[in-house]
Amino acid sequence: MNTADLGLPVDVPSTALFTDQYELTMLRAALRAGTAERRSVFEVFTRRLPNGRRYGVVAGTGRVLDAVENFRFDEGVLGFLRERAIVDEETLDWLAGYRFSGDIWGYPEGEVYFPGSPIMRVEGSFAECVLLETVILSILNHDSAIAAAASRMSSAAGERPLIEMGARRTHELAAVAAARAAYIGGFTTTSDLAAGFRYGIPTVGTSAHAFTLLHDRERDAFQAQVNSLGRGTTLLVDTYDVAEAVRTAVEVAGPELGAVRIDSGDLLLVAHRVRQQLDELGARDTRIIVTSDLDEYAIASLAAAPVDAYGVGTQLVTGSGHPTCSMVYKLVARAESADPGAPLVPVAKKSTGGKTSIGGRKWAARRLDAYGVAEAEVIGTDAVPAELAERQLLVELVKGGEVVAREPLDVVRDRHIAARAGLPLSATQLSRGEPVIPTEYLSGRSGS
Amino acid sequence: MNTADLGLPVDVPSTALFTDQYELTMLRAALRAGTAERRSVFEVFTRRLPNGRRYGVVAGTGRVLDAVENFRFDEGVLGFLRERAIVDEETLDWLAGYRFSGDIWGYPEGEVYFPGSPIMRVEGSFAECVLLETVILSILNHDSAIAAAASRMSSAAGERPLIEMGARRTHELAAVAAARAAYIGGFTTTSDLAAGFRYGIPTVGTSAHAFTLLHDRERDAFQAQVNSLGRGTTLLVDTYDVAEAVRTAVEVAGPELGAVRIDSGDLLLVAHRVRQQLDELGARDTRIIVTSDLDEYAIASLAAAPVDAYGVGTQLVTGSGHPTCSMVYKLVARAESADPGAPLVPVAKKSTGGKTSIGGRKWAARRLDAYGVAEAEVIGTDAVPAELAERQLLVELVKGGEVVAREPLDVVRDRHIAARAGLPLSATQLSRGEPVIPTEYLSGRSGS
Repeated sequence: MNTADLGLPVDVPSTALFTDQYELTMLRAALRAGTAERRSVFEVFTRRLPNGRRYGVVAGTGRVLDAVENFRFDEGVLGFLRERAIVDEETLDWLAGYRFSGDIWGYPEGEVYFPGSPIMRVEGSFAECVLLETVILSILNHDSAIAAAASRMSSAAGERPLIEMGARRTHELAAVAAARAAYIGGFTTTSDLAAGFRYGIPTVGTSAHAFTLLHDRERDAFQAQVNSLGRGTTLLVDTYDVAEAVRTAVEVAGPELGAVRIDSGDLLLVAHRVRQQLDELGARDTRIIVTSDLDEYAIASLAAAPVDAYGVGTQLVTGSGHPTCSMVYKLVARAESADPGAPLVPVAKKSTGGKTSIGGRKWAARRLDAYGVAEAEVIGTDAVPAELAERQLLVELVKGGEVVAREPLDVVRDRHIAARAGLPLSATQLSRGEPVIPTEYLSGRSGS
Repeated sequence: MNTADLGLPVDVPSTALFTDQYELTMLRAALRAGTAERRSVFEVFTRRLPNGRRYGVVAGTGRVLDAVENFRFDEGVLGFLRERAIVDEETLDWLAGYRFSGDIWGYPEGEVYFPGSPIMRVEGSFAECVLLETVILSILNHDSAIAAAASRMSSAAGERPLIEMGARRTHELAAVAAARAAYIGGFTTTSDLAAGFRYGIPTVGTSAHAFTLLHDRERDAFQAQVNSLGRGTTLLVDTYDVAEAVRTAVEVAGPELGAVRIDSGDLLLVAHRVRQQLDELGARDTRIIVTSDLDEYAIASLAAAPVDAYGVGTQLVTGSGHPTCSMVYKLVARAESADPGAPLVPVAKKSTGGKTSIGGRKWAARRLDAYGVAEAEVIGTDAVPAELAERQLLVELVKGGEVVAREPLDVVRDRHIAARAGLPLSATQLSRGEPVIPTEYLSGRSGS
């Protein structure tokens, strides 16, 4: 089934209004000034990782490609812009024919990144590129923040599966993107049906406390669930007394009971007790799933506990303390004039208050040490040194307005696991630290 | 213009998949067990405010009403559920005819809340109510978190206008809801065009550093902007040298220049210098807008600075350290049987690890002191005391499946300002503290 074609709630007709007004007023002014057609290069990068994080995770690239394709101004949108007098008629005419016709290069989705990494590069006329700032940043800043948290959690969980269940803690459509980003970061399944529908991510879910409370006795609830979902289901055992619930669960479902879920209390202690009780009852294959306010630290602390899977909600969808990245979209080079062949000039805002930008169109490569482990993120604007030519990070995503790099989510997920594995071992330490490899700028005078 | 009818990107065809899978598996099991039709009462509440916060702000109610109305299972959705074998045919048949037919009461949008406040109460059959858990919580948890941050910022800003400009730092549709919540919390305008389109919120925006960098000289960029947008526009003066830019700006636009924007550096210092310079240049009416990584503390610290408006991004859309609320959706009472007249029984999970719930259908009222200032949030399950009868907080939102309480956003915004003004003065202190009024439970044995 091609789930993308089913008209799901997250397929939006147009992304053109996911835009800050200033992008349209700049367009209007540039059209009038004759500068709108100057060839321009915008780059997405971040000046720093969130405090203490060792690496970032690029996520959202696939969604950016969808957003760029659907960035069109239809009659309803144009009518709104006219009524509000946000742009003039000349600009409205220009917008009516808008279709991005430039090129986009970027780090492939799932790749890791570091401060200064040119995660995405958008090239075309100033007019067509400036409009994409907000939607590109919204997607990359949100999705990458979630993927980074997911990656830390999946490191901490090791081989144990992780269930994404944070939909209730974030905006209903952010939740769908969060489930996608979590999957990229190493999660196994999601509770969010819209994410299953839209992206084909495996979904799971059995019951909540309300189901036990609905019934006259806990036993009735367990029996009803087993009757409906089979003995392989997961029974929630902490509505009243855990030990009694575990006994009842095995009585009702037999030792074939799939799993029990614990959603409150001291998970370390309770998991040990429940494991012992299940074993004594002969339910040695019944798994234990824990799900109460987990983050990567709680997951790590349960490494030695008899836990078979983790469900993570709030801390996943809020980026475990860092709900957004600080990616920016900056003009780094533009043509001297609107002539098609005019040379590019590197440009940058003057540095103040830590807002440093480096002008010029950049390449990036990851240098490896003698053992094949990453040792530096190397960025430059001149020719790529021969020894790094094969290690370049940017790939072509959009060519002349056509998306050329769609890929299945599993490919992205595998890429992330491989990219993380290529970093020094300290990358997956949960403690606060510096980026695990340094960013090196090769100095260069030319920006084109 | 009725912007809701324009088919905007945020009107979604169905909200039925903004649902955790366990809601459907519980429905399936309850249908088979004959318990699905038991009359049930679910309540939304939070056990605590975010650490240090004095009050919460209810936001998202209007969006919940839209989501409940659009909660339908069409063929595409039913096909997905069948293919994944999430529910059986009996359940699919039931879902095909789904339409919420129960009642919803809640705190009116914009009202403040405290730990335990029954912010929303959903009543109907277990089957029809259990399905709404995730979508209701997603909306209320997200929107209320943003509105709470916005309310603190608007307290700190006093009479000075606040511009919401955080779209690039959050999911593209979360951004639209965030702009709406910010407006409720006291913001004045937004940069997000989709929010203007969908909710009629006033939009603003002029130019970014890229516009200055596009042109050969800063003067050319300023001239282009003034030519297009008029002398009343806002010129961004920190691309290169602020003092030089201010001089150029006034030369180009004259003393009628609307405003200058400062987006980096020590805002307190720079604002004073720029004000002095503008005054010396005769541009006494030119306003100063500041926009660099502001939060409520930074806004408060600029109270004595010559600043005329604030633009806030990241910290607004991420809830200023608290990007979600901890609202839960709990079954608090249900009928003894599926008979239409069966009496309600209060139910609650056993308390463990701080997860306390109080069974029974609740009312809430805000008790005032002799000066008319709020002194307690009073919650009970028995009859409402006569002296609180006129101070009850829950209002009818949906009656027999029909939405009965739609209201314009300006009404909601005004309600919030009034509700906040009715709290003790310490409510708007920015320092960490306890909830500004206590929650009192009137003991009662009956839950119906």
